[in-house]
Amino acid sequence: MTESTLSTETTAYDGDPVFELHRGGKMAIAATASVSDKASLSMAYTPGVARVCTAIAEQPELAHTYTWVPNTVAVVTDGTAVLGLGDIGPAAAMPVMEGKAVLFKEFGGVDSIPICLDTTDVDEIVETVIRMAPSFGGINLEDISAPRCFEIEDRLKEALDIPVFHDDQHGTAVVTLAALMNALKLTGRNPESTRVVISGAGAAGVAVAKILLEFGIKDLVLLDRKGVISSTRSDLTASKKAIAEVTADVTGRTGSLAEVLTGADVYVGVSGGTVPEELVATMADQAIVFAMANPNPEIHPDVAHRYAAIVATGRSDFPNQINNVLAFPGIFRGAFDVHASSITEGMKLAAAQALAALVSDELNEAKIIPEPFDPRVGPAVAAAVAEAARLDGVARR
Amino acid sequence: MTESTLSTETTAYDGDPVFELHRGGKMAIAATASVSDKASLSMAYTPGVARVCTAIAEQPELAHTYTWVPNTVAVVTDGTAVLGLGDIGPAAAMPVMEGKAVLFKEFGGVDSIPICLDTTDVDEIVETVIRMAPSFGGINLEDISAPRCFEIEDRLKEALDIPVFHDDQHGTAVVTLAALMNALKLTGRNPESTRVVISGAGAAGVAVAKILLEFGIKDLVLLDRKGVISSTRSDLTASKKAIAEVTADVTGRTGSLAEVLTGADVYVGVSGGTVPEELVATMADQAIVFAMANPNPEIHPDVAHRYAAIVATGRSDFPNQINNVLAFPGIFRGAFDVHASSITEGMKLAAAQALAALVSDELNEAKIIPEPFDPRVGPAVAAAVAEAARLDGVARR
Repeated sequence: MTESTLSTETTAYDGDPVFELHRGGKMAIAATASVSDKASLSMAYTPGVARVCTAIAEQPELAHTYTWVPNTVAVVTDGTAVLGLGDIGPAAAMPVMEGKAVLFKEFGGVDSIPICLDTTDVDEIVETVIRMAPSFGGINLEDISAPRCFEIEDRLKEALDIPVFHDDQHGTAVVTLAALMNALKLTGRNPESTRVVISGAGAAGVAVAKILLEFGIKDLVLLDRKGVISSTRSDLTASKKAIAEVTADVTGRTGSLAEVLTGADVYVGVSGGTVPEELVATMADQAIVFAMANPNPEIHPDVAHRYAAIVATGRSDFPNQINNVLAFPGIFRGAFDVHASSITEGMKLAAAQALAALVSDELNEAKIIPEPFDPRVGPAVAAAVAEAARLDGVARR
Repeated sequence: MTESTLSTETTAYDGDPVFELHRGGKMAIAATASVSDKASLSMAYTPGVARVCTAIAEQPELAHTYTWVPNTVAVVTDGTAVLGLGDIGPAAAMPVMEGKAVLFKEFGGVDSIPICLDTTDVDEIVETVIRMAPSFGGINLEDISAPRCFEIEDRLKEALDIPVFHDDQHGTAVVTLAALMNALKLTGRNPESTRVVISGAGAAGVAVAKILLEFGIKDLVLLDRKGVISSTRSDLTASKKAIAEVTADVTGRTGSLAEVLTGADVYVGVSGGTVPEELVATMADQAIVFAMANPNPEIHPDVAHRYAAIVATGRSDFPNQINNVLAFPGIFRGAFDVHASSITEGMKLAAAQALAALVSDELNEAKIIPEPFDPRVGPAVAAAVAEAARLDGVARR
């Protein structure tokens, strides 16, 4: 084999360990069939391969057995909402997408391909993904800014009969719910009487709100920079209006963060902003604070702990890391294992329950969620998701 | 890691060695960066990866060093002209595309991704590939039917600053030229006085004609099912009209295969049809017959040898196998090694010369082209292509 010499270039970042780790990229293709001699070449390629193609043309479901498609996810982005960096474009988004592919493989045994698109137009993204779809067993949308991400996901789910999953929404929502289930248990709350405040109404905030409502939370508000998302405001986008109608409009709560945080049981920060210490001090006894902005939590966990019983962040250097990697590899693994045609709400709830259950034996205020490297996570999430797919009637094997 | 259980399904093809080799597909993703602990995860993914993204956003050429993009080819098809099977659609084309990816890796160290598109519309294919382009270092078009393949390639080459290569055209053309260079040498001919007949005017036929003209062949005709492609005909497509003007129109030759093959020096079959023994018998002394239809050559090599001095086919079980795998992995390897912005005519000619030169020490009528498994092939083609890219001014490193 002729090796690449590409990764030998000198740059201003030479010697920086993070950049050295990224040299040449973080992924590669591996052949799982040999073409080391004439006999194997004539099976893996012409003329043998023609028989496999013909069989699939006659009986399309054979693609599920004889191609890599059913285990392969397209990780699709337009580079508009990359981590906390914002709209850095498709080329600069690639290291995150490669990282995602590595995590898919390592934690879920799922093959995935980064597809960074040179368009931010909703129609163009949707039609491009639909055209590519025969190549993939599932679509993981990633780092696409709100509110476009909602429409893109909805239209792709409608058009395709394979799992479509916007991880920034649903991965975050699943792990947050898992952590909250255990936090409520530890503080003796039930969802019906728990009051939740979500700071941030982008992809993650809206999806967290929706899954908490499904879980049974009744008193819930979201805030953007202008305050509570409520239909009393005239500046709401369609997606904010829709979420207002099932959150603040129901309870009638409105106003500023200071107003709604007073007496609240749970603060969920997915805003990238900050929450002042004096406001956290006004929360209910045994408060729960999930300050998930990355890399800088909305409030430092040590400060939050002065008032809150349970604190979680997105960071690996504090307890209770709410990290999407706990969810997406197992969710796709489970969906793929049963050849699911979509990822249902039931599958997401099942993933959250499975995650929460993994720490039930050792549950305490510093252990409401498993560690990302807990080897039980991927298989447990996959099994729960596969079972839920069967219950929801979307499993095809 | 959670392993896939997908490939355990029972089908009607169980036990068939070709199908067993294809079980679960022929390729997978491999992580080249570790995420085995918190420290490595925080470098390969958040928060570390954000620094790499930011650096690329500020200095786009860093994507060349710190992502897998510059070594990755999209193998793009619409499934309309798969092997000799014709229009079997994108899903059924996948095994061929996976095979291509395996060959790219094995013989060129090139990572590649099969992209099977659910559209046959030229505009849609072009715009889809352009939108995906930030994810790839090159585009290999594959098994797209003529004449659409010509327009698609031309428009993509115009729009993109990365190599775009339609292998059915140019891979075939490069290897055919390499074989012909040695066949002419062995039979004491020079290109200027050699008369060539190409049977088949699809993607391969047109590309072979063009490269032979560049090489210096002056007397050349192509035929489709209706006879010689000449402007005297009123039924020509735009691409056939264009090739007629630089081939048959120049020499004034026209008519049937029987008419033009009489006295011809070289027959190149890329038609999938047949050529009768009695016509081959009318060719010039020391005739050269390349009967490349697969799996059934236009004439059986043993029959052709009754009249021809040199016979080549596309098959591995006869001498002189004209196989694209001799060209495409090394061509992309060479183009990538110098970060070429395109694949020029000079690079293709250099690839053909390098291939022809590899057998110069042992040149004989049964050895006009290297074997596919000759380990010198990939590196020799890559080196020649890289050098030609520099000479042509398309190398960027």
